[in-house]
Amino acid sequence: MSAAQLIGLDWGTSSLRAYLLGAQGAVLEQRDRPLGIMRVKDGDFAGAFAQACGDWLRAYAQAPVLLAGMIGSKQGWLEAPYCACPADAAAIAATLAPLALAGRTARIVPGLSCTNSAGVPDVMRGEETQIIGALPAAGSHLAVLPGSHSKWAWVEQGTVVRFASFMTGEIYAALTGHTILGRLMQADAPHDAAAFARGVRYGLEAPQELMSRAFSARTLGLFGQLGEAALPSYLSGLLIGSEIGGASGMTPHAGLITIPVTILGNAALTLRYTEALTIAGMRTEAGTPDCAAQGLWRIARAAGLLI
Amino acid sequence: MSAAQLIGLDWGTSSLRAYLLGAQGAVLEQRDRPLGIMRVKDGDFAGAFAQACGDWLRAYAQAPVLLAGMIGSKQGWLEAPYCACPADAAAIAATLAPLALAGRTARIVPGLSCTNSAGVPDVMRGEETQIIGALPAAGSHLAVLPGSHSKWAWVEQGTVVRFASFMTGEIYAALTGHTILGRLMQADAPHDAAAFARGVRYGLEAPQELMSRAFSARTLGLFGQLGEAALPSYLSGLLIGSEIGGASGMTPHAGLITIPVTILGNAALTLRYTEALTIAGMRTEAGTPDCAAQGLWRIARAAGLLI
Repeated sequence: MSAAQLIGLDWGTSSLRAYLLGAQGAVLEQRDRPLGIMRVKDGDFAGAFAQACGDWLRAYAQAPVLLAGMIGSKQGWLEAPYCACPADAAAIAATLAPLALAGRTARIVPGLSCTNSAGVPDVMRGEETQIIGALPAAGSHLAVLPGSHSKWAWVEQGTVVRFASFMTGEIYAALTGHTILGRLMQADAPHDAAAFARGVRYGLEAPQELMSRAFSARTLGLFGQLGEAALPSYLSGLLIGSEIGGASGMTPHAGLITIPVTILGNAALTLRYTEALTIAGMRTEAGTPDCAAQGLWRIARAAGLLI
Repeated sequence: MSAAQLIGLDWGTSSLRAYLLGAQGAVLEQRDRPLGIMRVKDGDFAGAFAQACGDWLRAYAQAPVLLAGMIGSKQGWLEAPYCACPADAAAIAATLAPLALAGRTARIVPGLSCTNSAGVPDVMRGEETQIIGALPAAGSHLAVLPGSHSKWAWVEQGTVVRFASFMTGEIYAALTGHTILGRLMQADAPHDAAAFARGVRYGLEAPQELMSRAFSARTLGLFGQLGEAALPSYLSGLLIGSEIGGASGMTPHAGLITIPVTILGNAALTLRYTEALTIAGMRTEAGTPDCAAQGLWRIARAAGLLI
């Protein structure tokens, strides 16, 4: 195992994933731990790190340590300032935040910020590392990272030009858990592909009417057109359709989206977004599974950290 | 008090308002009680009615009794079927649901239903009575009834042609109470007119991006551009602006809204919607305060119930 060249962590809100990386960024070992920043007691991030991969630290005294994700937020270990878009791996590498760790210096990857045409800021933390890892340094790309706060990122020649967050996942949870829409639903129903597709089409058709169309997740139940087991998938589709409808008007070139959309998400979300984007007439590509690891590697390389 | 000609109730989810009406629908007496259908124990609606205005029932043995609102829903006293749009006072009067009450027959006003161009149903209960009461029987009108589920209604010659619900109020409560947006907010802050207006403009500009723009209620706080006391008003404005932006594309004539919008709501909401609609370049009119009473009167008259 003397080939280990980087200890990299994708450290999020609810969990962390630690990678031991070898030559050319090959993943030598990977560990998933339920030690997200919201689950670390009393701010003992050093203890959590030691628990997750203290043995790596001891075994590879020369390996640099790079941390990405919410660990660099105000609620994390050390607040790493945002790097403003447009930003590529080199710009991110130039703004790493140093952190004393067991006698050496670890580094935290900054999140990205951007400002839209109305002067309103947007932010991401962790997703920038996946984007850098997933996309080639050449060509025009559009990536979507579905989740609680989905991110859409426009990338040119390896540079994140701009991005936009959509609160799709969190709004879905709030609507089903804390509004009248949840009342008619069977919360734990399995995915219903037909109901999902119906929701996608309805949301996509008029995303500007989202707050009105969402009410259909009640009325279609009231009128017996959708059963309680179909309604969660229907509402999920409606929100994702609205997201796609909104995002597809935000492309920097003010045109339609003609390039494939790279989806960077877990298997279930990748499947849903593939279905939804296909309904919207867009082509899709699934991202590489280890894009966070690749991103950590590329940022470490750009920072000159690799041995 | 022998002039009493109608006992009319606007009986909603959280409260009820009872009117004793005389000649030409004049309000002789009005009572507000916290006896909404969700607060009536064990479904004892007869007991709640007796508590609110049993004395009227005894004093005016000949007066007809008309009930509007959620009292006619599945969770209410008796489910009154919806009356399908287009619907005027006569159509509503023709579908009143009879209800035995202390030896006589009370009647429940049906809600309205309509179906949009995508074949999706929408419903209202109670608002139809306010609309019938507020708008003249001649001319083209557009009314908005702000609330948990705002209603926009297009009315021609006293007929509700179509309407659309927007879940604005309930989504506001879910976002502030159950998403990350609430974290940076001072929940009980007083109304901030400048922040509200900023939110209205931002929501109105691109209602199709609502799930993205909502995130600005976090980022503007993170970047210190809006303080915690300003954020609730900002988010409220953003949602109301999105609602107006979405609704203004739904007019049956597929054109811009050129007629004044009649606002039927409480004083605080009427003020907010007046501000927001003015920012959107629309003219507004505040509805009559007693429009529910007037609607009950007009429906009773159309049903031939008045003595």
